[in-house]
Amino acid sequence: MISFDRIDALKHEGRTLLIEWADGRHSLFHSIWLRDNCPCPECRHASGQRIIDSVSIPADISPASVKLGDDGFVEIVWSNGGHASRYDPNWLRAHDYSADGRTRRRPKLWGAEMQRALPEARHADVAANDVALRDWLSAIDDYGFAILRGVPVEPGEVTRVVGLFGFVRETNYGPLFDVKSVVNPNNLAYTGLALGGHTDNPYRDPVPTVQLLHCLQSSASGGENTLVDGFRVAEALREKDRGKFDLLSRLPVRFHFQDKDADLTAEACLITLNARGEVIEVRFNSRSLAPPDFAPDPIEPYYNAMRTFVKMLEGAEFQVRFKLEPGDLFVVDNRRVLHGRTGFSGE
Amino acid sequence: MISFDRIDALKHEGRTLLIEWADGRHSLFHSIWLRDNCPCPECRHASGQRIIDSVSIPADISPASVKLGDDGFVEIVWSNGGHASRYDPNWLRAHDYSADGRTRRRPKLWGAEMQRALPEARHADVAANDVALRDWLSAIDDYGFAILRGVPVEPGEVTRVVGLFGFVRETNYGPLFDVKSVVNPNNLAYTGLALGGHTDNPYRDPVPTVQLLHCLQSSASGGENTLVDGFRVAEALREKDRGKFDLLSRLPVRFHFQDKDADLTAEACLITLNARGEVIEVRFNSRSLAPPDFAPDPIEPYYNAMRTFVKMLEGAEFQVRFKLEPGDLFVVDNRRVLHGRTGFSGE
Repeated sequence: MISFDRIDALKHEGRTLLIEWADGRHSLFHSIWLRDNCPCPECRHASGQRIIDSVSIPADISPASVKLGDDGFVEIVWSNGGHASRYDPNWLRAHDYSADGRTRRRPKLWGAEMQRALPEARHADVAANDVALRDWLSAIDDYGFAILRGVPVEPGEVTRVVGLFGFVRETNYGPLFDVKSVVNPNNLAYTGLALGGHTDNPYRDPVPTVQLLHCLQSSASGGENTLVDGFRVAEALREKDRGKFDLLSRLPVRFHFQDKDADLTAEACLITLNARGEVIEVRFNSRSLAPPDFAPDPIEPYYNAMRTFVKMLEGAEFQVRFKLEPGDLFVVDNRRVLHGRTGFSGE
Repeated sequence: MISFDRIDALKHEGRTLLIEWADGRHSLFHSIWLRDNCPCPECRHASGQRIIDSVSIPADISPASVKLGDDGFVEIVWSNGGHASRYDPNWLRAHDYSADGRTRRRPKLWGAEMQRALPEARHADVAANDVALRDWLSAIDDYGFAILRGVPVEPGEVTRVVGLFGFVRETNYGPLFDVKSVVNPNNLAYTGLALGGHTDNPYRDPVPTVQLLHCLQSSASGGENTLVDGFRVAEALREKDRGKFDLLSRLPVRFHFQDKDADLTAEACLITLNARGEVIEVRFNSRSLAPPDFAPDPIEPYYNAMRTFVKMLEGAEFQVRFKLEPGDLFVVDNRRVLHGRTGFSGE
């Protein structure tokens, strides 16, 4: 942390501690939370992992004394057992658990206006410079996708790009999936058909997270890529029709894929919410949606809700389009951004 | 499918089709579901993926005619467009979406009584025989763990066992994680300390699913493995104290790990439910639980609920114990079964 967050005053009442920050904000911390997260070497192993047993802390623990140290740290001696804890004000500020603190960490939603400024970087920069790499990865974090230009046009180069920030997860398709027209395709991706917006491998558990597509050769005509921010469309549906949103986020469906080597099934809602009601995943792929098997009643309303959602996903106001040239690569967060393509003719 | 499910009668009323099976069971199917899952080559690509666009099916689709073919198949001609569909009765029975059909697919919960008959197989059998491999994998599916005896005592052999049924997911720890005492450990697993029941890498997203531990060398004293069925304990908590169960299944917490190469954070509930309220994941690891950051109010009740749950997880009535000898390997479903160990002294 670069900035230094200064504390003006500490108010300790019963089992809570109120911090008044120099910039006027307030944070409230509970004794059991503070004791549980004491950073001293008796409570934390040098690896950063917790040694103290959270559940052994008495439920009624409270401070015997609280004071602000000369270095700006919060110093607490605990009533139960007399253990002494010291907290860095920067750490406290970063872990402030107010609703306000949380909202600032949510992803940035986008629609067609994103077309004017696609997040992109040059391969040479990202490969050579940690700051450029961090900025490019931050775009993926914020927007769920980013483009990389000027990647060497070599088969397998895409896995070297992964090596800059992570690990390839091998599957039944191998470490790489070659998207091209083939004879007797076992997957529609191998045909030249247009593909509506979808997420990949929804039948896999865990579902693929970050996906990279590296263009080695482009077709003479067609083959534009389309991207849609699934989180944005899910929020638009929530606003427009709460009942349909609830059906899609409460009824899990199954996705299925089968070929001669693999038979894969996974179950998920089209829209997954975390326990706070925030959208954390959108999963949709018409081609591998298996027969829904929830109790009979909501079947028809469910199909209605899906129809509305899919039509919204296809809306031009949510879509960006671009054509990749050989050497271009794009990354999507496959649990958020749907990708598709217009038809193309292969070799 | 081996058995043949015979249909006695078809009753078609409006948009629903009622099937009376020869064994007395009934199944109800909706027209939109049936039309959406038509298996003909116009609606399904040879790869098994759907070609027909689900949302293009009219909401009020209904059969113009329904009859039982001579081969026992259900034959429907649709009113809208006149498309003809044929359904295999075995397929219909397997996809019956009644509540009854679903319950039979749930995992088998266990407690300490499992100690009397640990699911296990011999490596030589599983490696050579597909039926033995399937049976061993079924045990993992049903119980969330299984043991394999007689695996060659060679470093790296564990990844060859993975190769029998899946793929290694490489992480910042590499493709393999060597559990032993080391100097300056960056992880408590590298010490000889006892470890309470936990799931692995809760700070990783996606969290590890199937985990394998292969014993190459055992210590002179201590080092017993302990396993607990997290699903079983979660259900016991749901029965005993619904309020605490709700807190743990509705408030996500963060898990965190940091060393010189990696800084990993993931958010999840200790108990994850699917949209039907079924437990689909238990995640707990005291050492990497990060400071909870939900809004202040439920902090203290949350710690109370966690204390109750963790004490239950430690209960002898839920635990099985066994000691691995060199060549033994065990697999856990890391989203269900917690593993731990008693202390040991390394070389």
